[in-house]
Parts: sequence; C-alpha cells; structure tokens
Amino acid sequence: MESDELYPPERLAAARRATVAAGLDALLLTPGADLRYLTGYQARAGERLTCLVLPAEGEPTLIVPALERPAAEASPAPATGVRIVDHADGTDPYPLVAAALGGPVGTVGLADRMWAEQVLALRAALPGAQQRLAGEVLRELRIRKSPAEVAALAEAGAAIDAVHRRMGEWLRPGRTEAEVAADIAAAIREAGHVTVDFVIVAAGPNGASPHHDTSDRPIGAGEPVVVDIGGTMSSGYRSDCTRTYVSGGPAPTEFNDYYAVLAEAQRAAVAAVRPGVSAEAVDATARDVITGAGYGSAFLHRTGHGIGLDGHEEPYVVAGNARPLEPGMAFSIEPGIYLAGRHGARIEDIVVCTTDGVQRLNITSTELIAL
Amino acid sequence: MESDELYPPERLAAARRATVAAGLDALLLTPGADLRYLTGYQARAGERLTCLVLPAEGEPTLIVPALERPAAEASPAPATGVRIVDHADGTDPYPLVAAALGGPVGTVGLADRMWAEQVLALRAALPGAQQRLAGEVLRELRIRKSPAEVAALAEAGAAIDAVHRRMGEWLRPGRTEAEVAADIAAAIREAGHVTVDFVIVAAGPNGASPHHDTSDRPIGAGEPVVVDIGGTMSSGYRSDCTRTYVSGGPAPTEFNDYYAVLAEAQRAAVAAVRPGVSAEAVDATARDVITGAGYGSAFLHRTGHGIGLDGHEEPYVVAGNARPLEPGMAFSIEPGIYLAGRHGARIEDIVVCTTDGVQRLNITSTELIAL
Repeated sequence: MESDELYPPERLAAARRATVAAGLDALLLTPGADLRYLTGYQARAGERLTCLVLPAEGEPTLIVPALERPAAEASPAPATGVRIVDHADGTDPYPLVAAALGGPVGTVGLADRMWAEQVLALRAALPGAQQRLAGEVLRELRIRKSPAEVAALAEAGAAIDAVHRRMGEWLRPGRTEAEVAADIAAAIREAGHVTVDFVIVAAGPNGASPHHDTSDRPIGAGEPVVVDIGGTMSSGYRSDCTRTYVSGGPAPTEFNDYYAVLAEAQRAAVAAVRPGVSAEAVDATARDVITGAGYGSAFLHRTGHGIGLDGHEEPYVVAGNARPLEPGMAFSIEPGIYLAGRHGARIEDIVVCTTDGVQRLNITSTELIAL
Repeated sequence: MESDELYPPERLAAARRATVAAGLDALLLTPGADLRYLTGYQARAGERLTCLVLPAEGEPTLIVPALERPAAEASPAPATGVRIVDHADGTDPYPLVAAALGGPVGTVGLADRMWAEQVLALRAALPGAQQRLAGEVLRELRIRKSPAEVAALAEAGAAIDAVHRRMGEWLRPGRTEAEVAADIAAAIREAGHVTVDFVIVAAGPNGASPHHDTSDRPIGAGEPVVVDIGGTMSSGYRSDCTRTYVSGGPAPTEFNDYYAVLAEAQRAAVAAVRPGVSAEAVDATARDVITGAGYGSAFLHRTGHGIGLDGHEEPYVVAGNARPLEPGMAFSIEPGIYLAGRHGARIEDIVVCTTDGVQRLNITSTELIAL
C-alpha cells in the first residue's frame, strides 16, 4: 500500500482545523500513534526528545535528535510540509519547542501517551501554557478508519488468522505454554508482522486469568487453552485475535456447556454491530447472553476495544459508552468466561462497522477447536 | 535466579525513606521499570489504570484493573506487603488513588514514563498536589546495580553475544536487511530473550544513519553492515550490543582506516572506566581518539547510556554529565563514525564499573568481522 494512501499529507491541515475548533493553540506530539497518524513518521520513543510542534497557525516543526534526522528525512513526514529541526546529545531541546511555537501560547494539547518527564519539562519550558490532551482533537479523527486503514487492518487480520490456522503444529499436551508461545511468536513474524505485540497461551487454570501471559506449566490433555495473539504490520496497523483450543482429549463437560454460551454471545454481539447502535448496546448484547446462562459474574471485562495504530483505542465497547457506532469504526468483540482456579475461554474477532452492518476482519471458526 | 534476590522486598522501605528525604509525600507508579524494580510486578501498560500508590507514611496500595488481579496476585508484589485493590471496566479508578493516599498530599512523584493522560487525570483527581518525578527518588536507587542485577545483565549480555556469534548464518550479500533482521529476531528469542526490543541491520549508506532500522535493500558485497540488537530476558534486564560486519568481499579502504580508529576509541573508553572517573570523561576519551583522527564531526551521538530494567537509563555517558562513576553502574560504550551517503560503523559493549575498574558484559571481538 502506498504510504500517501494510508498517511495522506492533508491530515495535518485537518488536525489544525480541529485544533482551532477545540480551543487549543497547538498540538505537541511525541512518538506514538498520533505522530505517525499525522505524518507517517514511525518515531523512536526514548529519553531524547522527538516532538511534532503543530501550531494552530504557522509552520509545523518536527524536533528530532540529531542522530534521528536521517530517519526523519527518509520518512513520509517531509512530504506533509513539516520543517525538521534537530538537537545534539547533551543539549536542552525544550527551548526548540518554545521557538517552534513562535510566541506565547495559552493552551497546548499533549500526546495522550507522552511521558511524564516530558509533560513536566514542557510545563517548565512553557510556564504560561495550560496543558490538555491532543486526544481531544485526534481521537475524533482516528476513530473512523479510511478505506486504506480498513485494508491495512484486514491485512493484519488475515496475517494473524494464518497463525491461528497453524496452531496444530505447536499446541499439544506436555509442551509448556512458553514453548508454544515461542513458536507462535516466530510464526507471527513469518506471517508478515514486524513486531510481536503479545502472545497469551493460557491453559487450564491459567485460562481463568484473562491477561495471563505464559508459564512453564505443561499443557494437560483435555485442558482448554486460550490463545490471544497480535502484532504490528509494516503499515503500522495491528492484529489481535483470540481463539480457544483443546488438545489431547475432550474438554470438561461444564466447559463445553459454557463455551457454547460464549460462542453464542460473541456471534450475537458481532451481529448487533451497525451504524447508530451504541457501543454499550453491543457490550450489553454479549453480556445479556452470558448473564442469561448464569455466567454473568464470570465475564470479567468489557466486550471490546478499538484498534488501529494503537492496540487499544477508541471506541471502547463497554457499559457507559453511549456513543453510536459509525461506518469505519474498527474494534474487537471479545467476550470471555473465567472460572477461577479451573479454566476459562475467550473468543475475539476484530470487526469494522460498515455503512449497513459489520465486516469481520478475523474469519476463522469461532467454535472450540480440537487439535 | 530467585525473584527475591533480583527484586528484594525491602526496596519498598528504601524507596519510602528516599521519598521522605526528597520532600515528596508519595510516589505514584504506573507500569514500567520503576514499578517492577520496587515490586517485581511486570505490569501491562494500557488505558486501564495500574498504579502503585506508595505514601511516605501508611500502607502501600497497588491499584489494578479487575482482569489483572490474578496476574498481580501471582507476581512478587504481594510479598512486598502491598495491598491490591481492583477496579472494573467502565468505572473511574482515580478516586481509588486519592483514597489510597489516605488524605490530602502536598507533593507527589510520578513515574517518569507515566502517560500524559494519566498525569492530567491525576492532576484533576488530586487538585492540591504538586507533581514532580518519581525519578528524583528512584534513579538514585536504580543507578547502582546489585550483584544479582549485574548477574542478570551478564546473562543478557551472554545471550546477545550468542546471537552475534551466529551472524554468519544469516548475513550475506544479496539478502535484504529485513530478511537478515527476521533471522536475527528469531535467534534473539532462541537465545533466551522474552522480547526482541530492536534489530538494526544497516548496510552501506544505511549504516551512516545511526538509528536506521532495516529496509528491503539487498546487502552489497563488501558493504560494511552495522548490526545493533537487543532484547529483554525473563529477569526483566536487557541486552544491547553492536558489531559491524563485512561480507562477500573487502570493505572500502577508507572504511578500514576509520574502523581502526573507532575500535581504538571504543577500547580506550572501556579502559577508562573505573570508580571516580566522570561519565563525561569516558565520553571525552572516545571522542578525543576519533577527533584526533579527523572524524570528530562524524561521531554524531553520545558515547553511551545506562542499562538495566530500561534499555536507556542513568548514567548517560555524555558531555555535561560530570557525575563520577561508582561500582555497580552499568552502561554502554558505543562510539560510532558515520559518513553520510556512504557507510558507517559502531561498536557497542555493555560494561559495569567494578570496585577497581571495569567488567565487559559483551565479550565477542570488537574487530571488523569478515563473514
């Protein structure tokens, strides 16, 4: 995919208009999804300051460490019209931010994930400026994916589906969760991801902890195994997909019972996605099925999260989020049922809200997979 | 290595004493190296708040998302005496921070890499509290590594050395930087790292950009190739080692000339490390050799950075850092020479300042390696 399709240079102008509308005088963006979204520049986060200074009026400036200048110049950023200014190791870069603002500012919007050490340094360098979050402006731009972004998420979804399809090569009783996870991590890269963001392999009782990573515990025959994996493609867009497996024997009867409930809840929530339906209504759709079957207290988390350049972003599919879904919104549908000390299950697909319904970006079977 | 050797529970008490001495009423630590250093808990960074509230007086509280409670309880954190409190998705966790502080506070120290969205949320939740950085307190504790920490860094160093020793399996003319990097990434995991933190493979002109990552450009015969790689071990401690290679033919004569200068500069800087010598003196030792040979303007960055639970931390080996080295300080010595548009070289070892000198944690040859 061409970088200017995925990262169109005109986004900087749109961000500026939204900055003015939000009553902010400038955005200050350190490395992360907001900076990449606006400039295409995948900056390295670190103790050396990299910061896009985007004044509501006036020239945008990308401040980079001297040793990052070649990477910044080689990135799509210059095509967006930003001027690149660098600073050498051992010099204080914060005066460059004040200079790039071209005068006193009343209110600045900071990248939501800027480090506190930078937030406090900017407070000292811009003593008059009130600090708010750039997300107030950029979340609204990022929450609806363009066709090119949906294509990038679909490419990521196909890549992680390919890894799940190979699970039988690695997952079997007697191997430890960590051994299986190492094979999965290699396959995530082989499938085209440039980074492995997380590999959860949670067997038996470990499956009852939604965010258990892995352990050296061998997988037992007939133990349910939750496998939640994801990575980042060269496009910058991410994958995230969970399937639950059983290997070397039948799963416990009670597990099979609640797995059927979970699969129905996940199907129903996916089917509920369309423009105008609220995010919390989708959460309620999954939760009502699970609660109706008596497992409500075992569904420990929200139904889903948005995904794009960040692994978790708006919209969150959670009680209290009354926001109506709109075409282009991309998010996970991942209900789970967790029985402490025994086992658990989760099923996760990334979906996109279309003009008249929903598109699943993960398309492998959501049935319990016996290996 | 036992977790209580590497993460002794008494660190919490030491951090408290230092917090009082620094005039702070409490530390507020979100996921990252500071939290892991004090509790051994490798928390997941995310939009859900995880925060250790460590008041100068009173009970420490670890606030976690409900779905992370099992992971937090299974971590070494409970052994340090912290109370675990959780919050469900869709509820506001910030009142829990105020409650854990047990009353109004004048000044809080925030984790240096806390996200801005959390910094601003804490400003709103604790309107009376002045915000400073927890690093004021914790950098001093973390900068001198314990014997167990040095052993963990040595284990990481040996693991990355093992990857460099295998470079001949992957690096050859005609293969792209990205192809070689993929093989290296797999080997970094095979060598015992749990994450691959960075893989720089920079051939020919790309080697003149210190932080070039990789590209689809095929490596040319006789092109110098800078390979800077690192990962994180299960201990939480990190590796970082750079070697420069040439494959399929002799390197350009001028390259060989300045590589000899670089190797001498790196050797001299390592040899200069001992207690009482300043960090900037070590930088100057490397820089003087390179400047004396006429390449001063081609050495684009500082000589090194500390390493431990973070890949870059104190002490920084840079002009302006007059701090005397002390036993237990661990850092990189990595001078480089970069000729824009042509080629470059860097040599990096992690070293530890001992009671009477220096210990190298990377011990492969620093000569130009012909494959």
